[in-house]
Amino acid sequence: MNYFDEFQKLLISYDIDAYIVPTSDYHNSEYVSDYFKVRAILTDFTGSAGTLVVTKDKGYLWVDGRYFIQAEKQVKNAKIEIMKMGQPDVPTIKEFLVDFFKDVKRKNLGFDARVVTTKFAEEIRLALGNEINLHTDTDLINEIWLDRPKLPFSVLYRLDNSFAGKTFEEKIILVRDEIRKHSADMLILTQLEDQAWLFNLRGNDVLHTPVFLAYTIITKNQVMLFVDTNKIDLTIQKYLDENDIIVREYSDIYNYVVSIADKKIMMDLSRVNYQLYLSCDLKNDIIDAVNPTLLLKAIKNDIEIKNIKEAHIKDGVAIVKFMRYLKEQYEKGADLTEISLSDKLQELREKDKGLIELSFDTICAFKDHGAMMHYKATEESNAKVEGNGFLLVDSGGHYLEGTTDITRTFALGKLTEEMKNNFTTVLKSVIALSTAVFLEGCTGQNLDVLARTPIWKKLIDYKCGTGHGVGHILSVHEGPNAFRWQTPNAVIEPGMITTNEPGIYLEGKYGIRTENEMLAVYKEKNEWGTFLEFETITYAPIDLDAIKPLLLTKPEKEWLNNYHQMVFEKLSPYLKGDDLEFLKEYTKKI
Amino acid sequence: MNYFDEFQKLLISYDIDAYIVPTSDYHNSEYVSDYFKVRAILTDFTGSAGTLVVTKDKGYLWVDGRYFIQAEKQVKNAKIEIMKMGQPDVPTIKEFLVDFFKDVKRKNLGFDARVVTTKFAEEIRLALGNEINLHTDTDLINEIWLDRPKLPFSVLYRLDNSFAGKTFEEKIILVRDEIRKHSADMLILTQLEDQAWLFNLRGNDVLHTPVFLAYTIITKNQVMLFVDTNKIDLTIQKYLDENDIIVREYSDIYNYVVSIADKKIMMDLSRVNYQLYLSCDLKNDIIDAVNPTLLLKAIKNDIEIKNIKEAHIKDGVAIVKFMRYLKEQYEKGADLTEISLSDKLQELREKDKGLIELSFDTICAFKDHGAMMHYKATEESNAKVEGNGFLLVDSGGHYLEGTTDITRTFALGKLTEEMKNNFTTVLKSVIALSTAVFLEGCTGQNLDVLARTPIWKKLIDYKCGTGHGVGHILSVHEGPNAFRWQTPNAVIEPGMITTNEPGIYLEGKYGIRTENEMLAVYKEKNEWGTFLEFETITYAPIDLDAIKPLLLTKPEKEWLNNYHQMVFEKLSPYLKGDDLEFLKEYTKKI
Repeated sequence: MNYFDEFQKLLISYDIDAYIVPTSDYHNSEYVSDYFKVRAILTDFTGSAGTLVVTKDKGYLWVDGRYFIQAEKQVKNAKIEIMKMGQPDVPTIKEFLVDFFKDVKRKNLGFDARVVTTKFAEEIRLALGNEINLHTDTDLINEIWLDRPKLPFSVLYRLDNSFAGKTFEEKIILVRDEIRKHSADMLILTQLEDQAWLFNLRGNDVLHTPVFLAYTIITKNQVMLFVDTNKIDLTIQKYLDENDIIVREYSDIYNYVVSIADKKIMMDLSRVNYQLYLSCDLKNDIIDAVNPTLLLKAIKNDIEIKNIKEAHIKDGVAIVKFMRYLKEQYEKGADLTEISLSDKLQELREKDKGLIELSFDTICAFKDHGAMMHYKATEESNAKVEGNGFLLVDSGGHYLEGTTDITRTFALGKLTEEMKNNFTTVLKSVIALSTAVFLEGCTGQNLDVLARTPIWKKLIDYKCGTGHGVGHILSVHEGPNAFRWQTPNAVIEPGMITTNEPGIYLEGKYGIRTENEMLAVYKEKNEWGTFLEFETITYAPIDLDAIKPLLLTKPEKEWLNNYHQMVFEKLSPYLKGDDLEFLKEYTKKI
Repeated sequence: MNYFDEFQKLLISYDIDAYIVPTSDYHNSEYVSDYFKVRAILTDFTGSAGTLVVTKDKGYLWVDGRYFIQAEKQVKNAKIEIMKMGQPDVPTIKEFLVDFFKDVKRKNLGFDARVVTTKFAEEIRLALGNEINLHTDTDLINEIWLDRPKLPFSVLYRLDNSFAGKTFEEKIILVRDEIRKHSADMLILTQLEDQAWLFNLRGNDVLHTPVFLAYTIITKNQVMLFVDTNKIDLTIQKYLDENDIIVREYSDIYNYVVSIADKKIMMDLSRVNYQLYLSCDLKNDIIDAVNPTLLLKAIKNDIEIKNIKEAHIKDGVAIVKFMRYLKEQYEKGADLTEISLSDKLQELREKDKGLIELSFDTICAFKDHGAMMHYKATEESNAKVEGNGFLLVDSGGHYLEGTTDITRTFALGKLTEEMKNNFTTVLKSVIALSTAVFLEGCTGQNLDVLARTPIWKKLIDYKCGTGHGVGHILSVHEGPNAFRWQTPNAVIEPGMITTNEPGIYLEGKYGIRTENEMLAVYKEKNEWGTFLEFETITYAPIDLDAIKPLLLTKPEKEWLNNYHQMVFEKLSPYLKGDDLEFLKEYTKKI
């Protein structure tokens, strides 16, 4: 069925001029369950982010730099135009809509208010002025997506304190402190990761994100959890009772919120959906504030940190075994494909009993596929891994100990000088950020250029951030910390974990990315201030076959040798025989 | 006379609880003429920035990192407390006043509204709430500073178009474009540099800044210049007439502004004084916007750039001659002092007929004096230059071709290993920023860490920006471009000139600073975007006697050698004999 054409007919029948389809669930989640994959159904574009605007004539799909290439490949419908965000002459959605409605007489704009953030909706509404009619109470796709999947269902489980490091009682005190600081009566939490973190509960409602659909309302003396009660077994019910957590049905949230009056309600309007906001706006004072849980969960506690390092050792062991398998099988001329190799890596990770699931779809991209930053091999695209080239593998797991995210780019066969130069340049970028020492108060916006400079000097850029925060058995992408030079991001604080993943992507040729996770730690406090540095906590060889030592300075070589020595020390106790020999070979001094 | 005690008595007699004395003239200028040196009179602190708050009991002097050491040395009055801005537990002036007035019943705060920016005054007023009584119409110091100097007087002169590069007619079109974009009826300009730039006029009202006291009002079809008409000779009057510039008396501005009604007035409230704002606020719409002249004058035109490079060659010639004189006289054991050396350098600069004046007080600081970033030798402090140590010389000139600002730190006698290590580290910082290649859109906030990282890795910081914009025969410190990691600053655009001046300052020991000016230029536009880089336009040897080549990487050595080769090529045509030999020696390859 051609959903896009059918959808346009719906617009015409409802007399809606433009309809916005974002990629989101009711909780502004990064990854969404199948129920919410409306944009993918309408466009065939499967990327994790992107917003479609459908008009009676055309479709416009906004995608970010990670997806420029992929979107062009996947979107076959000639009526859908790809809008490359941030490129010159590409308007934002708001600018586009202002322009679009300029010449429309009766202005009708539609979207499902539950899948759009309040901030976005209000910005659009303000930009379009008083004449705009908003149609936000129907999820139009329901009329044509007849086999739409159900909302996800999974039974909740508890993260033991030996993994969580802080109990719910300890966390709720911290959260209530912040509510008090904002002089609010209550906090409404809708972000799934924040709620999972607060309750030390996990679920399996969203692929790659061990969370469960829920809303939480925290007042001075009550905590209410709105969740499908079928997801709660007796053990969890007991745990909730012991902690005086009141459980209500997931779908009751809107009715409940409508009943609140004369309160100061704290919520993060850049995350809370518009429907929820509209349901309580008029009768209450809304205090727009970042969820206090965001920063609290980003700063990992000592037990989390200890465990996360264990998870990285497990991950490193799998990567080394994978790397040996890859290199040996490739040499033997075995039949290898992107999918078979992804499967092999998953199998190696799954050998560890602590693995919950992969933390995201493995990117296993050979040659030109590697230039698509978020490529996922499909049966159609699945490349045979043969001939000379780079294999870029970006993967990770949720272990009971923690979440990992690692990219290694492997050299297969003979590389050109240009390829080695570029690989070594990316390594220089990784090292520049890894070795940073910085004063308290520095943000990722300050530090990003350290990684970009070696690549910028080659007049190349990568069209994504240099790094993102990583959740603890939550989303693999987590704020507020990040390395992005163009947008404000959080002060890097000790305990935060951020990836360091610069890359070079040459369309039609290859992609190179090397990604480590880094823990921010205190270094020294002296007369000049408090200095921090990064501790790299990803343990896996960086492929020596692709490095040109001549291009590295002495301090850079020292860093690489020290890093590889640490990798050997961390992983060698868990490897033996040929795997151990392989590790020794690929962590040797240059 | 003890002005501070007398001033406190005035507060008591007027029943004012706290009185703010900033360091400013009516135009928010960086350097002020003697008439405005009220804070210095009251505290003995002679630094170029700092704000005093006087209460009936005490004084509180806020100074920034450049002046921590100097303020402690100069302020002898035990009643005056030094408030080190940005240090932990040091409140801002606003925080201090809020706390101070908490327990005061009838709250009376005083300041001269003409020397305080609107933004600052309004922030204070809002923070203190409705109960505060502001006394802003008297300049209290007049009652006790009986021999107060007069307002400055100097005759205006015109900057020929072969120096200015753009005529007044061309500039006013650009400014009116910006006024139109803001839908304003008029722009009120109060910044002295902006007016001097717009009219291509200069004066000598403020030491080191060739400007003249004035206000300008630009409407759609009129330009009014408020200036002491005695400063205008017949030539200038003719020029003003030809350009339809209406001249009014300087002191008429407030009366004139009061007469404006029902207009949209564009002004920069972070720069316009509070008195001017109050004079027109109620009857008009105020559009608070950055002065369009700020960015226009920061982006130097091709003629300015060509001339500025000439000025730097002239400056470099003086520096080389100075350096030879210094090193030779030092070796001979001659009687050298900080002041005699400053005088020598000034004399060498003055040999060039194009020199208008020095662009700021020369900092010539030996040994521990170098640790005070903005030290100025006085008869009392004047150190003999003997024994082993660093001599830090920060100096510059306004030439008819342009303005310079250069720092070199010279090695005298035998240096310790630590001294050489630190000198070489500062050089690494200079090189890191000099060699940056960056995408369009980068700000100094992004780029600053490139310079800081080598020094931060030694767990040292310098408590000032890494660099500032430089005016064209205007203020040597000019926005909006700068390198400051903690505060937002402008996107670096081609044509902007910014200093690159990292340093290491060890209190009681020595200071090292190496400062070059850098011009931002286009490098390449390609699929990734538009890349920019810096061209260093300061031409003078960096003292090889203090460099430890072992600490430099190969690319760093290459940069230094290339830089010194360029210095040789630029300066050698203007030097001969021993000076030329000296230049050859100090620009040789390492």
